[in-house]
Amino acid sequence: MSVTAAEGFVASGVSAGIRPSGAPDLAVVRSVTRAVGAAMWTTNRVQAAPVTVSKRHLGAAQPQAVLINAGCANAATGREGEAAAVASAEALAGELGLAPEEVIVLSTGVIGVQLPLGKVLTGSHAAVVALSRDGGDAAARAILTTDSGPKVAVVHGNGFTVGGMAKGAGMIHPRLATMLVVITTDYPLEVGEPEAFLRHAVSTSFNRISVDGDCSTNDAVVLLANGASGVERDDAAFAAALAEVCSSLARQVVADGEGATVVLEIGVTGAASAAEADVIACRIATSPLVKTAAFGHDPNWGRVLMAAGSAPFGDGYAQLDTERLTVAFDGVDVFVDGAPTGNVPELSGAVCRIDLQLGLGDGAAAYMASDLTYDYVRINAEYTT
Amino acid sequence: MSVTAAEGFVASGVSAGIRPSGAPDLAVVRSVTRAVGAAMWTTNRVQAAPVTVSKRHLGAAQPQAVLINAGCANAATGREGEAAAVASAEALAGELGLAPEEVIVLSTGVIGVQLPLGKVLTGSHAAVVALSRDGGDAAARAILTTDSGPKVAVVHGNGFTVGGMAKGAGMIHPRLATMLVVITTDYPLEVGEPEAFLRHAVSTSFNRISVDGDCSTNDAVVLLANGASGVERDDAAFAAALAEVCSSLARQVVADGEGATVVLEIGVTGAASAAEADVIACRIATSPLVKTAAFGHDPNWGRVLMAAGSAPFGDGYAQLDTERLTVAFDGVDVFVDGAPTGNVPELSGAVCRIDLQLGLGDGAAAYMASDLTYDYVRINAEYTT
Repeated sequence: MSVTAAEGFVASGVSAGIRPSGAPDLAVVRSVTRAVGAAMWTTNRVQAAPVTVSKRHLGAAQPQAVLINAGCANAATGREGEAAAVASAEALAGELGLAPEEVIVLSTGVIGVQLPLGKVLTGSHAAVVALSRDGGDAAARAILTTDSGPKVAVVHGNGFTVGGMAKGAGMIHPRLATMLVVITTDYPLEVGEPEAFLRHAVSTSFNRISVDGDCSTNDAVVLLANGASGVERDDAAFAAALAEVCSSLARQVVADGEGATVVLEIGVTGAASAAEADVIACRIATSPLVKTAAFGHDPNWGRVLMAAGSAPFGDGYAQLDTERLTVAFDGVDVFVDGAPTGNVPELSGAVCRIDLQLGLGDGAAAYMASDLTYDYVRINAEYTT
Repeated sequence: MSVTAAEGFVASGVSAGIRPSGAPDLAVVRSVTRAVGAAMWTTNRVQAAPVTVSKRHLGAAQPQAVLINAGCANAATGREGEAAAVASAEALAGELGLAPEEVIVLSTGVIGVQLPLGKVLTGSHAAVVALSRDGGDAAARAILTTDSGPKVAVVHGNGFTVGGMAKGAGMIHPRLATMLVVITTDYPLEVGEPEAFLRHAVSTSFNRISVDGDCSTNDAVVLLANGASGVERDDAAFAAALAEVCSSLARQVVADGEGATVVLEIGVTGAASAAEADVIACRIATSPLVKTAAFGHDPNWGRVLMAAGSAPFGDGYAQLDTERLTVAFDGVDVFVDGAPTGNVPELSGAVCRIDLQLGLGDGAAAYMASDLTYDYVRINAEYTT
């Protein structure tokens, strides 16, 4: 049910003809009662037109509806691209009786191609007609590109619900926010409150995953809260439910990473600081050599050390002392206090767990990453032109 | 002729049985007259035993001979690994009548496996017996691992010669120095002088290439200068010859990058500063999406913008303004002043040139990188265990 699991939300997904395959490629999500909301955006210096336009809208009004298209990122498209993003928001707002600033627009697909505005407007009208309480799954399917399937998550709290959908398989690497994610809830929040909740949930979910180390121009995570449940507030319970939805969607994005066959779970403890634990975990998560070894089910801990030892921090590298370092694969120690143990773990599962204990301090971080496979190369060498 | 092209150097390469394939895997290079020298090392916090030992030796004496083995990196091997590196240097020094500190030891191969010291000592003896003026090519072959062939370069100056050999195909990403490289010259230099020459030549060659963004634990570039040419000094001519040898070897390393089919030449101009040009070029050179597009001969400039817009600099990103940005593929403008031109360059060659003009300042940088291919994944998923 994804974004329509919570009370007071409708959604739909239709084929607007933007994707050459004819697959569904346009989704609308709307709160039927007044909602408050927040969003987190890609920090890439090259920002897509819908990101620029939606940021402006969010600064002026509370978001009531989201229009998403797949098949065209509308990024690096100059003034023509920005005008198309504005026009599509205005058209949807007109049909829904909203102000244009109450509409958030999101796009995903090829960079550098102009948005086919006619198709978006026709598709948007069809999507408005199709809006329903059961439309969550159709919406979740209509936002996909190289994804192998929809990514949805729903958590029922005590009297309220948080539901979400995500799109993302490539160009996935955290810089504040990643991919396209829409989360809805009927939990009651006041204007200005959603951002802090969202930022906290994103910091331990979408900001701790990597498919290919590349940071999209279009990433966005949007939260809409309409209070339709009428439940008494219990902010701790809401924060926990929101974190669970974000973590579930983040794991689904990694598991469906382009060409992925293995999910790497990387845990770093004992670092000199939390920030250093973070860059070490990130460096391991983005190393092509670690990721190809995972694809080969090879417990190649030497490559993990190579990556950990070259994690950029400040003007140099994060602190690491091999004499104090312990590394385990799937719980089996392979390197203890600076020397190999001779253990050779059997790796054959869909999950490969790598733990580093640095023995330097209290810094800890966790990361999830995809492996690097033939299919990753095939998908990305064949995409576009 | 590689390292024996210059006067007064002998070399050899033999099969010591370290590589399971039985391929040549041990090389010795020696100056027959007194030499001075310098080296640059990996900056990875995890440093191989031969790196630790050789740094100590270089601090105590001028290097006269280099012992190199392939098939085992002797990295992350604890005290046992360090003792093996010391013992191998002592054994070679004894046979050559040198002090142990006058020997540099270098290793390349699998990380985390103990050096088979018996094989190294037997092989080292055989290599000493085989030392000859014609041994440069045999030495260049005996230092390879996943390389598809030897990498050598020779430049004849006015009365002097600079020659070198390199090994490196994976785990290649500049952090001061990369791969194993030995360069010899009969140009006359005094004690302490080689380092400045070497640092300058490396900064525009080996420090501007990337195969996979991964920084080895064993990287080293060594320069030996014995003055055997007896030529009058012309430091500008020597610096130019040294730079040419380094650039040639660096290009050979990229062209032979694991699985590589295309060399990406990335040029960034007009950046706000040289340092920002550097990180932008580096970010493009390491983006899996740019590298898979190059493999597919796809002029996917949207991915170049994505990478350029997220080049880490300080606490954020390097400055970039899409409105001032121009991008060309193989000389054809694809994006000018913030908008696509509609041009679709034909890419089919073994070289793909990508130029960015940022329009912000005078910062410029150049980088070379390999594409990301099926064979890169195959080689690295199958290597070890």
